[in-house]
Amino acid sequence: MVVEVLRLGHRGDRDKRISTHVALTARALGADKIIFTTEDEHVENSVKKVVESWGGNFEFVVEKHWRKYIREFKKRGIVVHLTMYGANINEIMPEIREISRDKDILVIVGAEKVPKEVYELADYNVSVGNQPHSEVAALAIFLDRLFEGKTLYRDFEDAKIKIVPSKDGKVVIREKQNK
Amino acid sequence: MVVEVLRLGHRGDRDKRISTHVALTARALGADKIIFTTEDEHVENSVKKVVESWGGNFEFVVEKHWRKYIREFKKRGIVVHLTMYGANINEIMPEIREISRDKDILVIVGAEKVPKEVYELADYNVSVGNQPHSEVAALAIFLDRLFEGKTLYRDFEDAKIKIVPSKDGKVVIREKQNK
Repeated sequence: MVVEVLRLGHRGDRDKRISTHVALTARALGADKIIFTTEDEHVENSVKKVVESWGGNFEFVVEKHWRKYIREFKKRGIVVHLTMYGANINEIMPEIREISRDKDILVIVGAEKVPKEVYELADYNVSVGNQPHSEVAALAIFLDRLFEGKTLYRDFEDAKIKIVPSKDGKVVIREKQNK
Repeated sequence: MVVEVLRLGHRGDRDKRISTHVALTARALGADKIIFTTEDEHVENSVKKVVESWGGNFEFVVEKHWRKYIREFKKRGIVVHLTMYGANINEIMPEIREISRDKDILVIVGAEKVPKEVYELADYNVSVGNQPHSEVAALAIFLDRLFEGKTLYRDFEDAKIKIVPSKDGKVVIREKQNK
């Protein structure tokens, strides 16, 4: 299963830190790729720097024709739109996990108000609670429940920095600079 | 069990949106209170507006003497510091959930580099993966695993707006203005 995240409606300066958190959360929790619908050099650089130091093949792409992207994606997978108006995640998650065994998943997270079409294009509109909170939190919980903790401590290829989980403080492994 | 969240090291303008997301995530996922260590009117107003419309008793407080606050808290509960350098959440969570049956929990999430003392004051330093991502995501996943989905759709007292989870689109219930 390939998991991609589509960040809809990023509003430049106002959203740059939240959007960076969305992208890094996608990567850390096990997604393979994030798609933005507008260019943002700041976000792109932050994400690329993390990939360079911490490894793995997480992709950052900009795709202005997002409707077309969603339609194309549906040929190989399902589209899950995270929205506070959607179905109860506690009830719908087993079904999505079942489907994910042999289909890819595109997760859509909006910044501002999301066009009505998105609700219609999505195979699932899923809510992570029905209180206002954070698209970063919604994405994190969705991916955590999808992967059930299996992706959190996986190894990233070609990492220059690694951290070893420890109760007692920092254990950081750095690649030697001069090798 | 009472759950409180201590947001350490909020850096004004730079962090205002992330800190707001931290606070709203705490509320939506089941925490009772958030403690900031510096004043921020923007964040405070955003949180208070949400509480006013969406109900419940979520508290927003500013506590400059956070070391003292942590020490006092330890008399009635445990302190969990979320950090990418901590113990594996997959392994440590059952133990924390067990303790939470009869103790309160203070969850610490840092913005910038966290003083070394925090690692020592905490009963648990817990990592949510060991890749750089987001304190919003870390808090969301920790609380989701602590409450196991039970808090996500709970009712908030005195809510003026409510959303009913629905697969097919928006179902919003608003309190009548003129009652």
